[in-house]
Amino acid sequence: MDFAYDDTTEDLRKRLLEFMDERVYPAEEAFEWQAAESGWTAPPMLEDLKAEARDRGLWNLFLPGEHGAGLTNLQYAPLAEIMGRSPRIAPPATNCAAPDTGNMEVLSMFGSERQRERWLRPLLDGEIRSAFAMTEPEVASSDATNIATSIVRDGGEYVINGRKWFASGAMNPRCAVFIVMGKTSHEGPEHRRQSMVLVPRDTPGITVQRGMHVFGYTDGDHGGHAEVLFEDVRVPVDHLIGEEGGGFAIAQARLGPGRIHHCMRLIGMAERAIEMMCRRALSRVAFGKQVAQQGVVQDWIAESRVKVEQLRLLVLKTAWLMDTVGNRGAHTEIQAIKIATPRDVEWILDKAIQVHGAGGVSQDFPLAGLWAAARTLRLADGPDEVHKRSLARRELKKHMPAD
Amino acid sequence: MDFAYDDTTEDLRKRLLEFMDERVYPAEEAFEWQAAESGWTAPPMLEDLKAEARDRGLWNLFLPGEHGAGLTNLQYAPLAEIMGRSPRIAPPATNCAAPDTGNMEVLSMFGSERQRERWLRPLLDGEIRSAFAMTEPEVASSDATNIATSIVRDGGEYVINGRKWFASGAMNPRCAVFIVMGKTSHEGPEHRRQSMVLVPRDTPGITVQRGMHVFGYTDGDHGGHAEVLFEDVRVPVDHLIGEEGGGFAIAQARLGPGRIHHCMRLIGMAERAIEMMCRRALSRVAFGKQVAQQGVVQDWIAESRVKVEQLRLLVLKTAWLMDTVGNRGAHTEIQAIKIATPRDVEWILDKAIQVHGAGGVSQDFPLAGLWAAARTLRLADGPDEVHKRSLARRELKKHMPAD
Amino acid sequence: MDFAYDDTTEDLRKRLLEFMDERVYPAEEAFEWQAAESGWTAPPMLEDLKAEARDRGLWNLFLPGEHGAGLTNLQYAPLAEIMGRSPRIAPPATNCAAPDTGNMEVLSMFGSERQRERWLRPLLDGEIRSAFAMTEPEVASSDATNIATSIVRDGGEYVINGRKWFASGAMNPRCAVFIVMGKTSHEGPEHRRQSMVLVPRDTPGITVQRGMHVFGYTDGDHGGHAEVLFEDVRVPVDHLIGEEGGGFAIAQARLGPGRIHHCMRLIGMAERAIEMMCRRALSRVAFGKQVAQQGVVQDWIAESRVKVEQLRLLVLKTAWLMDTVGNRGAHTEIQAIKIATPRDVEWILDKAIQVHGAGGVSQDFPLAGLWAAARTLRLADGPDEVHKRSLARRELKKHMPAD
Amino acid sequence: MDFAYDDTTEDLRKRLLEFMDERVYPAEEAFEWQAAESGWTAPPMLEDLKAEARDRGLWNLFLPGEHGAGLTNLQYAPLAEIMGRSPRIAPPATNCAAPDTGNMEVLSMFGSERQRERWLRPLLDGEIRSAFAMTEPEVASSDATNIATSIVRDGGEYVINGRKWFASGAMNPRCAVFIVMGKTSHEGPEHRRQSMVLVPRDTPGITVQRGMHVFGYTDGDHGGHAEVLFEDVRVPVDHLIGEEGGGFAIAQARLGPGRIHHCMRLIGMAERAIEMMCRRALSRVAFGKQVAQQGVVQDWIAESRVKVEQLRLLVLKTAWLMDTVGNRGAHTEIQAIKIATPRDVEWILDKAIQVHGAGGVSQDFPLAGLWAAARTLRLADGPDEVHKRSLARRELKKHMPAD
Repeated sequence: MDFAYDDTTEDLRKRLLEFMDERVYPAEEAFEWQAAESGWTAPPMLEDLKAEARDRGLWNLFLPGEHGAGLTNLQYAPLAEIMGRSPRIAPPATNCAAPDTGNMEVLSMFGSERQRERWLRPLLDGEIRSAFAMTEPEVASSDATNIATSIVRDGGEYVINGRKWFASGAMNPRCAVFIVMGKTSHEGPEHRRQSMVLVPRDTPGITVQRGMHVFGYTDGDHGGHAEVLFEDVRVPVDHLIGEEGGGFAIAQARLGPGRIHHCMRLIGMAERAIEMMCRRALSRVAFGKQVAQQGVVQDWIAESRVKVEQLRLLVLKTAWLMDTVGNRGAHTEIQAIKIATPRDVEWILDKAIQVHGAGGVSQDFPLAGLWAAARTLRLADGPDEVHKRSLARRELKKHMPAD
Repeated sequence: MDFAYDDTTEDLRKRLLEFMDERVYPAEEAFEWQAAESGWTAPPMLEDLKAEARDRGLWNLFLPGEHGAGLTNLQYAPLAEIMGRSPRIAPPATNCAAPDTGNMEVLSMFGSERQRERWLRPLLDGEIRSAFAMTEPEVASSDATNIATSIVRDGGEYVINGRKWFASGAMNPRCAVFIVMGKTSHEGPEHRRQSMVLVPRDTPGITVQRGMHVFGYTDGDHGGHAEVLFEDVRVPVDHLIGEEGGGFAIAQARLGPGRIHHCMRLIGMAERAIEMMCRRALSRVAFGKQVAQQGVVQDWIAESRVKVEQLRLLVLKTAWLMDTVGNRGAHTEIQAIKIATPRDVEWILDKAIQVHGAGGVSQDFPLAGLWAAARTLRLADGPDEVHKRSLARRELKKHMPAD
Repeated sequence: MDFAYDDTTEDLRKRLLEFMDERVYPAEEAFEWQAAESGWTAPPMLEDLKAEARDRGLWNLFLPGEHGAGLTNLQYAPLAEIMGRSPRIAPPATNCAAPDTGNMEVLSMFGSERQRERWLRPLLDGEIRSAFAMTEPEVASSDATNIATSIVRDGGEYVINGRKWFASGAMNPRCAVFIVMGKTSHEGPEHRRQSMVLVPRDTPGITVQRGMHVFGYTDGDHGGHAEVLFEDVRVPVDHLIGEEGGGFAIAQARLGPGRIHHCMRLIGMAERAIEMMCRRALSRVAFGKQVAQQGVVQDWIAESRVKVEQLRLLVLKTAWLMDTVGNRGAHTEIQAIKIATPRDVEWILDKAIQVHGAGGVSQDFPLAGLWAAARTLRLADGPDEVHKRSLARRELKKHMPAD
Repeated sequence: MDFAYDDTTEDLRKRLLEFMDERVYPAEEAFEWQAAESGWTAPPMLEDLKAEARDRGLWNLFLPGEHGAGLTNLQYAPLAEIMGRSPRIAPPATNCAAPDTGNMEVLSMFGSERQRERWLRPLLDGEIRSAFAMTEPEVASSDATNIATSIVRDGGEYVINGRKWFASGAMNPRCAVFIVMGKTSHEGPEHRRQSMVLVPRDTPGITVQRGMHVFGYTDGDHGGHAEVLFEDVRVPVDHLIGEEGGGFAIAQARLGPGRIHHCMRLIGMAERAIEMMCRRALSRVAFGKQVAQQGVVQDWIAESRVKVEQLRLLVLKTAWLMDTVGNRGAHTEIQAIKIATPRDVEWILDKAIQVHGAGGVSQDFPLAGLWAAARTLRLADGPDEVHKRSLARRELKKHMPAD
């Protein structure tokens, strides 16, 4: 047992931290100004940052294997944490932003040569963006078997009909392709009825209707969260990813790393929040006393530190398990971090907001926006309750009397 | 001891509930559409609703005494709860919306005849709106002695310099007047150095700079929350409210009823959230089971009911105390409801959001917006921590050994 | 709506408070010494206190109607709170201690003339004690239909077989009679299969096996919590309470007032804990500062006050509802107080313990013992989870679409 | 970074697990029976278990360096966890029970050759027991500078006067020696005024007055928690441990490993509790449903698993830090585990109790006793609040502007 990062990780951490100090943090204020003017597209400055990150070898770090930087999950995790300290800039600047990351993983693992050429290549180059269309407004989508969008084969084509929402990034005009999850069959085992297809965004029959809000935020710089209508949308059968009926398995494969990334970025957000909380508390005086001297504020700071240390270790161990025994062997841990991280980081952000007073809920600090992101992750990628029930059942199984 | 509402209250509750059913709830969807188009002004439909409410005798219910409807706090409280079920429409429709309510109370209690004629009258008639400028970005404003805006007498005028923010309603062009809190003296007892003056919004030297956001919301329909710069702003000395040095006392007097109103409306929001949570849970199925059958969801519903019943009683008792022994005698209870209500209602809204899944954080349901309002009340009008410390000190005092 | 106690209540409160000050608190230390020597019987001093309480007209206050003091629930509640401040002395001294109170209620409401003569009379006079044997070790007794003890009619007798535990008071040699809940039928509606019979403690076939512990406490002064074996125990058929199949209904009738009493006493315990917490915090210094000046301790004190004020009001309203619309009409509120009170008072006691340091968990302060009592009430009389589920279902029913 | 245990650890874990399965668990029931009869001494069976453990090479595993088994903290931690699964038997059986462990560490690190010969040797052989007398009833002992016991040099002797309590193990007649912390000076730096001396238990002037209770438990099998009076107790000056004024530093050195051990054992208790919770939930039916199928119970199980995984990793990392950068470098982490572990394990035990119903609070299951142990650790070795304040101050220091 050894808790030190390896040399590759330490080297990349150093370079990434320099990039953060030299380019990312200094850009934050201007980024907000540009974002306020940019509607559903990313602020223009992002292209420069991307070029710079690529030059520095900080590009596609999330992607294991030959198509990406080839890091293990355990090596990438501390880098994702650092990116999470400035979560609206650092991940897209390094081409490590969801949902493209998950989509690239899917294409890398399950895509055909041709699909990889057409979509993975420009995604890896940061030339286009993509969206993942799974959640539906009409059903409890946490249960994937509820998904109602139909994907029906008709000769050499699939015909897609359905309504999706919270397709993140899809409002951005640079979003070139959707990965759409739907039902290709109403028979057979429940988890073999779903399939995923690639659907170019300009295919006839697609209507990107509106951007959904998240606690008042449109997340426009990120391309928003679209409601999308699919009416008799036709794509050639070779747009199927993997095999018919493989959609559920691909979704599962996509979620493991996605959750690790989300959790590590959340930990970075939490570190940022603790830093801001401390600085604010040190800089303000109320009732004749520095706010940092208030016992309750100290209690929050200590609790935040205790929570973050625990979360980080569990996420790192989960990454290590994914690397050593695979995603299935890390199932309990992946669920555990998905349950624990968003809610604990939400708690820390809440306290940082409280220390900032009215400023904390406003646009003058990133805290309220980060809070909305953390809160939303308590229900995105499966609400906590679904993960807890599943985790509990596995725990109970260990203790069931053998027949 | 008797827990039944009196006849006046029951009659007004009945009429208000009818108004809600017949006019308010049916207007909610259109209100949102108009609000999205209306910038910093209230949706146009509001004027019709105001006329209707006034016709129905549902007008200025919040204001005790001769200038308003003359209800006691205990009579008004259950009405404010009902208004809170549709908090963006019902309070302004009945001319019971903050910050006008607090400003009307101030003018009613402390205003000169002339001030009442010029400002109270049109406010009572719903012709103008007003703002309250107290919080400052540069200091921890929860400690009123920190307030730095200067109000300096110069002959027959006061000259005001300072920067305020979160002046709710001030972005609205119909906002005609500010009540500004500032320092008229740097000597004497700490709580006798502040004064309040009326400042017409069109006075030279005032710059309404921008609307502050609250978790991504601008609250434009409400007139936003403005940052306002006062540079050598001059008003005649008769614009002083009450006496020089009386600002702190007026602020205290203003806060008691304000807190009761906020808390009762929050309870109405909570009831709405419980209702929505139940309906959603009854209408969705996941993993082969109605969501309403999930044990954890039932736990949330039960906890919500238990919390609301307790909160309501404490708020009502506080109102009764204010009516019978005065605001000072109800000091502990006023602080207690200010501590307990926002956070418990926040909890309930959080659970209602979770039951709604992605929809819960979006603009398609009012829950995320209500959540932001509840969360903000944990720091507005004094953060919880300030109230708790003060309450604890009074509790400790009871047990101090006599000298 | 009126939050003041009526004159009868105020008069009794005054007299009871005097009794507490003059006789109960001064006796506490000696009571502990006697209790440590008294095994399963009450400390001898209790008889004097009983005589004194009876002289002062503070006797059987819990019992409404002609057999007792005739108070309403709303009148008794604040008296039970006061008794709860010294819960091991005041309730038995005033003949208001469980489980006798519940048993007297049952006999008063459902007992035959003869049963009342034989058992109710000496119980009302404080001459004997009684026990209630319902919970069983072998089954989840929170679901009364699980109860397995059989009560089989055999000619003019009932024959009882089964094992009970946590029959509070039954270790005390003065305990003269059990009320035993068992199954008289295995057919018919599930809640009509249970019956209750009176079983004199000296009936052959009864073995009082041992006293169960509660977090290390035997509660010997209270007569402990016995495990009792019933083997072919025979009683005449006129020992049946009410009618065959009526056991479940009697149990329900018994629980309503029982819960109110428990909750009010818990509130008294909480007030005592707050008082002790304040006094200790004022008397100790750590790290150069009075403990009472620590922000976190002040936070606990404030939270405790806020919790207690809410709990008391909800319990009082519940009492009022029971008086005005009956126990069934107060069902939600009875469950609500049963859920909220033990856990919140447990929280307050935990904080009071923490302020007392090592002393807090020891026998030198009553806090740890009170904590164990509060904690146990989270599962006695039905665990919280059962009440919450039932309450949630009623809440959901309000929102079910009519067919 | 590597999360696998090394070979030495794996080998010892295997042997210890076998010992648990073959000897410890099967002995638990009889241990309780013997303990109930044994007053303040350990149950007789313990000696056999000690001999067996020593034979198996499972002896003094806690002690690093030449005097003990020579394991690192990281190697010992998972073994302590396993012992914690049966915390009243496994630690004393393997000679790894507090307070002897801490006392042996002190003697090993700071004792003179002669002190080690006289006291460390028989302690390592499990022939005698020892006690640590630090906490005092009269002062807030969490602040060591409050300690009032005086140790005054008089010629070739130290004279000790003072009152201690919660000297664990001291009621046991086999306890042969106290390590006593007291003040040797009232001048000089505040943390250089304390010293520690070895005091044989039979020295004249010592009165072991009584055993303190912990939530009703006497912990008699462990030798209880004594209140001890020191009146003009004289020991030769060579009974001083280390140097005069070194007491505070020795206390600090003693606490680091002590906290790790406590936390690891707590994690073992938590695993035991989860196991019991699952088994009970699987074996009981209520309201027509296995308790294990209740959503709320599943929620508890999942939360318990998530908490335990996080706690274990933080404790292991802390052990690794202690091994690699020393106790001072692990200061934040040592405080973090001391804050997080007792309260989270307390939470898990509470839920396990609730699943067990009335049985859970009784002597028929170990849960209530384990709960009392976990709860007490929230205040033993420094209450959480002291650790949190200290941790927060270090966190704040990182962000203080340089002068």
